Amino acid sequence: MQQGKQSIRFEQAPRILGAASVVGEKEGQGPLRQFFDEIEKDPMCGTDNWEAAESALQKRAAERALEKSGVTRNQVRYLFAGDLLGQLIATSFGTVDLQIPVLGLYGACSTMGEAMGLAASFVDGDNADYTLALASSHFASAEKQFRFPLEYGNQRPYSATWTVTGCGAVVLGKQGGMAKITGMTPGKIVDMGYKDSMNMGAAMAPSAVDTIWQNLQDFERAPEDYDQIITGDLGTIGSEILVDFLRSKGCDISERHMDCGVKIFSDQDQDTHAGGSGCGCSAVTFCGYVLPKIQTGEWRRVLFVPTGALLSTTSFNEGNSIPGIAHAVVVETLM
Amino acid sequence: MQQGKQSIRFEQAPRILGAASVVGEKEGQGPLRQFFDEIEKDPMCGTDNWEAAESALQKRAAERALEKSGVTRNQVRYLFAGDLLGQLIATSFGTVDLQIPVLGLYGACSTMGEAMGLAASFVDGDNADYTLALASSHFASAEKQFRFPLEYGNQRPYSATWTVTGCGAVVLGKQGGMAKITGMTPGKIVDMGYKDSMNMGAAMAPSAVDTIWQNLQDFERAPEDYDQIITGDLGTIGSEILVDFLRSKGCDISERHMDCGVKIFSDQDQDTHAGGSGCGCSAVTFCGYVLPKIQTGEWRRVLFVPTGALLSTTSFNEGNSIPGIAHAVVVETLM
Repeated sequence: MQQGKQSIRFEQAPRILGAASVVGEKEGQGPLRQFFDEIEKDPMCGTDNWEAAESALQKRAAERALEKSGVTRNQVRYLFAGDLLGQLIATSFGTVDLQIPVLGLYGACSTMGEAMGLAASFVDGDNADYTLALASSHFASAEKQFRFPLEYGNQRPYSATWTVTGCGAVVLGKQGGMAKITGMTPGKIVDMGYKDSMNMGAAMAPSAVDTIWQNLQDFERAPEDYDQIITGDLGTIGSEILVDFLRSKGCDISERHMDCGVKIFSDQDQDTHAGGSGCGCSAVTFCGYVLPKIQTGEWRRVLFVPTGALLSTTSFNEGNSIPGIAHAVVVETLM
Repeated sequence: MQQGKQSIRFEQAPRILGAASVVGEKEGQGPLRQFFDEIEKDPMCGTDNWEAAESALQKRAAERALEKSGVTRNQVRYLFAGDLLGQLIATSFGTVDLQIPVLGLYGACSTMGEAMGLAASFVDGDNADYTLALASSHFASAEKQFRFPLEYGNQRPYSATWTVTGCGAVVLGKQGGMAKITGMTPGKIVDMGYKDSMNMGAAMAPSAVDTIWQNLQDFERAPEDYDQIITGDLGTIGSEILVDFLRSKGCDISERHMDCGVKIFSDQDQDTHAGGSGCGCSAVTFCGYVLPKIQTGEWRRVLFVPTGALLSTTSFNEGNSIPGIAHAVVVETLM
């Protein structure tokens, strides 16, 4: 059901039946270590290369989420999934064995928001009894895709973020479960002409502003109507820009804003600088840390807003800017 | 509404209100030249590089489709779009000016099927009054992304296809229009272990078999219930495999199968070998050639099945196979 100018209200409020988070060793040493389902110490996950390792993370997270939700692979009608790699190869090879029809998505690091929203829309519209949504990233496959060979040992400015190795997956259905998805605000692409690929938080912040602002308008809510407004991977710098920018529009989210990238690493101990990033960052933080708090009712209503930077090495090398996008989903407690 | 095991029936049958196809010079010299809305002779489309040129094709096709459908940019609630380039940069830069919320999709050359299906599901489920779906490819940006520098002048085996330069876009709504979308069969990833990237038709054919077969089962239809079963870019070799494979399952589509890749070029005159390919191939052939035939009632019901090869240069160089995927939509006449 259309809500306001840009949002959707899910009248049947699809349920999150189960969720799983599988992360790498560094994430397993961070402040959220106790919340993840699996911590994999081998960066190769027993495979030959980093891309296959990321695929392995997807497969494990999907299987674990199914197991935890008590839903079988055959019951899941459609999978909504994506990753950061060119042509989504982590997803293609990671999900082929599930033999569930796949709708491949690319929203850069906003993918988990896009996936959860679309997966919810299919359950809400009676197009599926059960759907699966997942997103992944891997530090080494992302460095290879976007930056420098790891062997080069490049220096990273303090504004840079660290790509999370991990995959988060949620199983959606119609009844029971841990929490409900009551709305979605798909985001517009916002291009402020920003070009520094070592400060992606700044590049993405305006898109988060745009989507959060629009969500509040569309649902006629104030920031206080959410217990938490949770961005994906703005990091410390992007988070500050977000809060300041919204404050200048008369909207103060400072008391209730959390960024998954800021939460997942401790820069002081882990040398991660501005925070974590990647599709996996918001996905595992949501599945491991956020969702249980909604389940217990500690947070009654949360706006989950993964943020993405829409660049490739080709667009960057051609001198293009870094447009941002942010897709929001509203998740509420059943308590 | 769920239909059978893997399909969706759109109860409100969203309408195609308008469509546009913008192609490059070579496509404009092919057998379908009279059917396209615009033929752009400059491979750069007045920009500095091929990626920007592909973005320009998207923008023009979107604007033309809006114009033809009589729908304004502001009325369109969501855009479903994708391309073949890493991190969907043709889409990010091609659609940013539309300022319509974007759901980025990657299904390789099956993207137009995925986009039309999702766009229809949003209209059908009352999540949008109007949606826009588009997909593009560009010969030169694809060669750069996947194969060799054009300057190298590599030889192409007869099994290879030629990436179509073009973008097709459709505007969907609830009433009126040219045709209706009555169903969708999202595809599974099918990996037969095939590894020859110079014969993608063979790599994709099994996924087309899977989706077409499942669509017929789910809707309890025989091939004769479709006037045409139209694959995206299997080319001559993949088409033969498809027809033979389905025949071995007792299903003869030979009398009613058409492949957009076979249709769009004349190998004899254009040296394109096995046919056209790319997201743009099925998108422009559907918008330019197929849709008008449905509109006039020449074809009453068509199964449109764009096919995708899920590889990247990274997966290929790592020795991986080329999984395929095919997403089908059912389009019917209003006559």
